Amino acid sequence: MHHFPPRLLQGYRNFATTQFQNERQRYRQLAAEGQKPEILMIACCDSRAAPELIFDSTPGEMFVVRNVANQVPPFHPDGEYHATSSALEYAVQSLKVKHIVVLGHGRCGGIRAALDMESKPLSSDDFIGRWMGLLRPAVEAVTTNALMTRHERQTALERISLRYSLNNLRTFPWIARREAAGKLQLHAAWFDISFGELWLLDKDSGEFNLFSPEESL
Amino acid sequence: MHHFPPRLLQGYRNFATTQFQNERQRYRQLAAEGQKPEILMIACCDSRAAPELIFDSTPGEMFVVRNVANQVPPFHPDGEYHATSSALEYAVQSLKVKHIVVLGHGRCGGIRAALDMESKPLSSDDFIGRWMGLLRPAVEAVTTNALMTRHERQTALERISLRYSLNNLRTFPWIARREAAGKLQLHAAWFDISFGELWLLDKDSGEFNLFSPEESL
Amino acid sequence: MHHFPPRLLQGYRNFATTQFQNERQRYRQLAAEGQKPEILMIACCDSRAAPELIFDSTPGEMFVVRNVANQVPPFHPDGEYHATSSALEYAVQSLKVKHIVVLGHGRCGGIRAALDMESKPLSSDDFIGRWMGLLRPAVEAVTTNALMTRHERQTALERISLRYSLNNLRTFPWIARREAAGKLQLHAAWFDISFGELWLLDKDSGEFNLFSPEESL
Amino acid sequence: MHHFPPRLLQGYRNFATTQFQNERQRYRQLAAEGQKPEILMIACCDSRAAPELIFDSTPGEMFVVRNVANQVPPFHPDGEYHATSSALEYAVQSLKVKHIVVLGHGRCGGIRAALDMESKPLSSDDFIGRWMGLLRPAVEAVTTNALMTRHERQTALERISLRYSLNNLRTFPWIARREAAGKLQLHAAWFDISFGELWLLDKDSGEFNLFSPEESL
Repeated sequence: MHHFPPRLLQGYRNFATTQFQNERQRYRQLAAEGQKPEILMIACCDSRAAPELIFDSTPGEMFVVRNVANQVPPFHPDGEYHATSSALEYAVQSLKVKHIVVLGHGRCGGIRAALDMESKPLSSDDFIGRWMGLLRPAVEAVTTNALMTRHERQTALERISLRYSLNNLRTFPWIARREAAGKLQLHAAWFDISFGELWLLDKDSGEFNLFSPEESL
Repeated sequence: MHHFPPRLLQGYRNFATTQFQNERQRYRQLAAEGQKPEILMIACCDSRAAPELIFDSTPGEMFVVRNVANQVPPFHPDGEYHATSSALEYAVQSLKVKHIVVLGHGRCGGIRAALDMESKPLSSDDFIGRWMGLLRPAVEAVTTNALMTRHERQTALERISLRYSLNNLRTFPWIARREAAGKLQLHAAWFDISFGELWLLDKDSGEFNLFSPEESL
Repeated sequence: MHHFPPRLLQGYRNFATTQFQNERQRYRQLAAEGQKPEILMIACCDSRAAPELIFDSTPGEMFVVRNVANQVPPFHPDGEYHATSSALEYAVQSLKVKHIVVLGHGRCGGIRAALDMESKPLSSDDFIGRWMGLLRPAVEAVTTNALMTRHERQTALERISLRYSLNNLRTFPWIARREAAGKLQLHAAWFDISFGELWLLDKDSGEFNLFSPEESL
Repeated sequence: MHHFPPRLLQGYRNFATTQFQNERQRYRQLAAEGQKPEILMIACCDSRAAPELIFDSTPGEMFVVRNVANQVPPFHPDGEYHATSSALEYAVQSLKVKHIVVLGHGRCGGIRAALDMESKPLSSDDFIGRWMGLLRPAVEAVTTNALMTRHERQTALERISLRYSLNNLRTFPWIARREAAGKLQLHAAWFDISFGELWLLDKDSGEFNLFSPEESL
């Protein structure tokens, strides 16, 4: 008898007897040689937006940070511990990834919480309030626009947030340096849960454009 | 022509034309009704240890935090932004998950960095050094045993670290409270990349025991 | 009516009417020509770790020493009788084996006794206490780490003990000499009773690595 | 590429894919519950006389000591380490075995060495000479009988040696005590390699009698 959630044990059993068996050699090699992912993915904790599922990725491909609302805080080396900055440092300085992708998604609970900032915090400690406070100027800009619906505001904030994150990434000197040297590219994408759409940020225009699966690569 | 990594676009195309088509209804429902995951998974960023693959999970099942070395810092509500604590707060207070699983894994680069603490930091900011500094007492306990090999020390630290994280989870008052009330269970597991093994923490003994896929649930 | 344990008599009957019949010629030849094993196996007395079963060996293949916790004491020619050193001398100097394998195993009662050294001895003579005292420095190194569980300490000590035994083997001048001359190889392995795993010591790194039955030889 | 003897790896592979698979549950149980063998077997290192093969035993049945010529030294608690006495102590005092079986065999190299005592030792340390010196009075008695052939002398010494071992077992106070209390039985047997015969010591007469596999138990 295990206390561990049975659904997870059943899932692991599927994995162990099928996928792992099929990729047994690959796992051994990944263990022996270490990981060499070329992509750092910064995604949301949301249970509906796992980047491995959305990008059908295989083990070893993506180094994945997941926090609420896929945020990147600005560079702030104050000697405290920083989960996200640590992951950036490790991926860029040690693994030397070639791409950083920030992946947002629709109906994000963190973004919704940011829009509801005046409402009661989840606990008196209000960790979420502080964390989503990183978006405060954008929240204000969005909420003062009385002509947008609630859903439109949320989508707008999800996309503004992605542009924020790209800007914040560039406040890390070793990221800015590598990007300038052509060794690192920064990307943003937005996934629509309801229709499975993927929208890609166009770097020149700043717009998000729908990517069609039928499109040639 | 996109700048977006072609491998990701190809992967998305696979997803969009197969899995998403098969679960179209489920995605629509998840979008409309919101997520209701029962599990908060705290996992490592490592590209070889994606919890969705290891547990063969489907969209909507797990709310997933990923940081370097799957750490949970102790409760420390100082008004700063805290990526991990925010995710805990959201998952426990808003989503009301029933289980928190901390998932460690073998050959973890963060743990290796912790064991190499005396060596040169990755950048002068040393985010990783601070972050892995959460494990300092355990690092000292492990490194004073000169008779264990490097790999043996690393595995020992990976497991001690998981017990640390469970302890730290209980420093959050709303987690301790829900656990005491029987509304929330805390678990830890360790995944061996090389052989695909899953080891589960036994709560009574504190030991990690191998889970066999042949075992009945 | 025999007093001899009936289970053994039944077992011998199986042997005599099947295996022995099938290998009748081999036994006659082994009797006539004498044994010429190429392997000296040093294993534990434990009823769950018989090397002939684990290595599916046939008569004549391995010269087998079994003592509590498969220990090799250091070279100490004091004119007293030494069970293990005598067997080493016979195997190396008379039989001229080409390999010495020290085989440890999980959940070893002798190792457990070593970890419980402060507890009450099994008899006032305390033979086990003296015998396991060969591991005293390792026991101290392991038990000072309060963050490892009992089982983790035990596994660590089982492996350290195997490295000790290899070192002690090399204190025998005729072993060191033959190894230096390339006529003798020393090996260590660790058997996990619960899952039937075999871990092999890598001579270069000092690490134990799992051997997979699927692996090519 | 492994340096480990390939024949052993091949043997382990046979074990892991057949016997272990068939007894998977038994191994797990033996690991979880610990060993509870009822028999302590004291056998020779000889590669042709593995007790598990001769008695077709399964994991968990016999706690097995193997030294050169299956000897039991007399009780001698001098504070030094004693491989054989330690194993006796552990089997009797901790495992509380119900039977001790001393298993000798024909064409024993140790016994032959004892008969050749005047000849050159295997090394200047002469561990074997000391160890087989435990049999000195018997050797003298046998070699002064000029009417026996060399082979007859050897067989005679092999059997005398088994009676010696039984006597020496009774010098251990906790063995004598348990035997007197009816909690422990002592047995001796002799295996003929050439013909696969098993001879059992009759306790009353002191004779060795051939056991026939056809005999009812």
